[in-house]
Amino acid sequence: MHVVDAGGFSFTPAPHAACSPVRSPAAAGRIQAPAPAERMASSGLQTKKRDNHNGHFVQPTNPNVATMQEDVLYHFHLSTSTHDLPAMFGDVKFVCVGGSPTRMEAFTKYMAKELGLDHPGAEYPNICVGTDRYVMFKVGPVLSVSHGIGIPSTSVMLHELIKLLYHARCSDVTVIRIGTSGGIGLEPGSVVITRQAVDASFKPVFEQMVLGKRVVHRTHLDERLAQELMQCGADLREFPTVLGNTMCTSDFYEGQGRLDGALCSYSEKDKQEYLEAAHAAGIRNIEMESSVLAAMCGACGLQVAVVCVTLLNRLEGDQVNSPHEVLVEYQERPQRLVGHFIKKRLAAAGNPRDL
Amino acid sequence: MHVVDAGGFSFTPAPHAACSPVRSPAAAGRIQAPAPAERMASSGLQTKKRDNHNGHFVQPTNPNVATMQEDVLYHFHLSTSTHDLPAMFGDVKFVCVGGSPTRMEAFTKYMAKELGLDHPGAEYPNICVGTDRYVMFKVGPVLSVSHGIGIPSTSVMLHELIKLLYHARCSDVTVIRIGTSGGIGLEPGSVVITRQAVDASFKPVFEQMVLGKRVVHRTHLDERLAQELMQCGADLREFPTVLGNTMCTSDFYEGQGRLDGALCSYSEKDKQEYLEAAHAAGIRNIEMESSVLAAMCGACGLQVAVVCVTLLNRLEGDQVNSPHEVLVEYQERPQRLVGHFIKKRLAAAGNPRDL
Repeated sequence: MHVVDAGGFSFTPAPHAACSPVRSPAAAGRIQAPAPAERMASSGLQTKKRDNHNGHFVQPTNPNVATMQEDVLYHFHLSTSTHDLPAMFGDVKFVCVGGSPTRMEAFTKYMAKELGLDHPGAEYPNICVGTDRYVMFKVGPVLSVSHGIGIPSTSVMLHELIKLLYHARCSDVTVIRIGTSGGIGLEPGSVVITRQAVDASFKPVFEQMVLGKRVVHRTHLDERLAQELMQCGADLREFPTVLGNTMCTSDFYEGQGRLDGALCSYSEKDKQEYLEAAHAAGIRNIEMESSVLAAMCGACGLQVAVVCVTLLNRLEGDQVNSPHEVLVEYQERPQRLVGHFIKKRLAAAGNPRDL
Repeated sequence: MHVVDAGGFSFTPAPHAACSPVRSPAAAGRIQAPAPAERMASSGLQTKKRDNHNGHFVQPTNPNVATMQEDVLYHFHLSTSTHDLPAMFGDVKFVCVGGSPTRMEAFTKYMAKELGLDHPGAEYPNICVGTDRYVMFKVGPVLSVSHGIGIPSTSVMLHELIKLLYHARCSDVTVIRIGTSGGIGLEPGSVVITRQAVDASFKPVFEQMVLGKRVVHRTHLDERLAQELMQCGADLREFPTVLGNTMCTSDFYEGQGRLDGALCSYSEKDKQEYLEAAHAAGIRNIEMESSVLAAMCGACGLQVAVVCVTLLNRLEGDQVNSPHEVLVEYQERPQRLVGHFIKKRLAAAGNPRDL
């Protein structure tokens, strides 16, 4: 392996990716080099020659992936030696991810109808049926994958998803999280399209521990894609849609300033000040996955966006206690917006294979 | 609310808990006070008078919980106003948790047989059937709950589990994680009972962000309980059982020094040095949930232990590629060990209600 980088996501744009203004090298996203005492981790990118295609291929930044004899995607219960990944996934152009397995299945059925691919008796089997860690469904060019709750659960899924898309030789893939969140200063049911994914200190970074050392990456979301999604909200005119920053936390209770967890080490006044400071920093919603999605997908040549509905206004309370049917309808909103976006993109391309 | 603590888990032992040597006040577990510039978070504990019982009640450290008119346990789809929690859960003495929903259901069926509570046609319905975030099953005094992958997913579950046990007026509850892990220097299939849950820097701490500030808690596992579990492994003599430190990470790939993720910013030599240093620090396995379990349960008066099987030896590789049936049998080992432990405890007590 070659020494090209110190501790961050390393990325050498492949020739086919270099022409794209929206695929920024991940190295530029690394904003804090490890301290001198920290381990200098290193890797290079041995770009594997891919098929003749002018698109932007999904490209892991880890050079080892290209040379592995077999790659077991353990948490998907898929493997390069037991599954024909190019045949199964080669036409994927959109990957929609969300926490809840049921919601991701419902989204697949919804997309099948929207794309005219549904028919009586149609079934959409869970591709990851050999495991209960994640679910995965596919209809046409749309892959739908659950990621569970939180950054670690999402990062495991993303590592294997990115490798899957690479092994399948996918190109020009857009990843969109369709999720739920707590709003700040918004009417419940509003949909937030994320401008910047920020951490609990309101900084646009994703921090992780690598070989025992703290490494900080800049989160990167695609601005043009966010604007495209905003336009879809405006087209629909079905619910309030706003562009705002999204705070990504590692806990739902103390980590989001709730007063109703099993543990709580601050006052209501402290909480209120914190949420108001978040609002002043442009944060309009809080969830638990956006930063790692932005950091990892951005590093590997994927266009990425986050579209979350707000289930409550955190300035007015902590408990999610709207009636079940109201919450169910709220959760369909990001699906409808992203469904509209996918149809527009496909219509503009004429043929999904030309996208 | 009263000002009693600065930023950490706060805990004032209730009268009935003060007599127990194994319930250490959580405040003692806080090892790093916030810097002066950090927010001074505060709370006290308004101990709610519980029923006349000499046991050690489960006690959230958050005083607000005692005064809430309704408590919606959102991710369990349970609520104090719609469910009779004392009737449903009041007799729970053992809570076994694990990442995989299927495994937790299998454990319930296994325990039903072991406790002589199984009968033809018996069903063990998922108590959290209204949501797909977690599953929960109960048989006799044993509750079985899934927590998904990673610290955030586990912390959300634990906040609601601790409140559930409190609302149900449970006492003398033992929580045991029965999970999977990567081993360090152990034969695959070995079972590790955790002495200390440590972070990626090998320190016995759990770090979290609260109102945007970093707070560090000491992880606390019950030493006598770990010894009791070791004895159960010796009783069974079915597989190697070792007492060792467990490293808890926030990622499965880069976070555990794997070379086969979509991203990898270090060399094989770096990785090997890191794992060997971990081994030298007494670490025998790596997983993704133990530290938050130790910190939160320890703070709320729960005896807690971690029992994980190792699926591979990380000094020899990264991929989990043993045959499916071998992995399935490995995953049953912590269940068998903990099943034996529960039967021993119940036999020693004569009657589960006297535990």
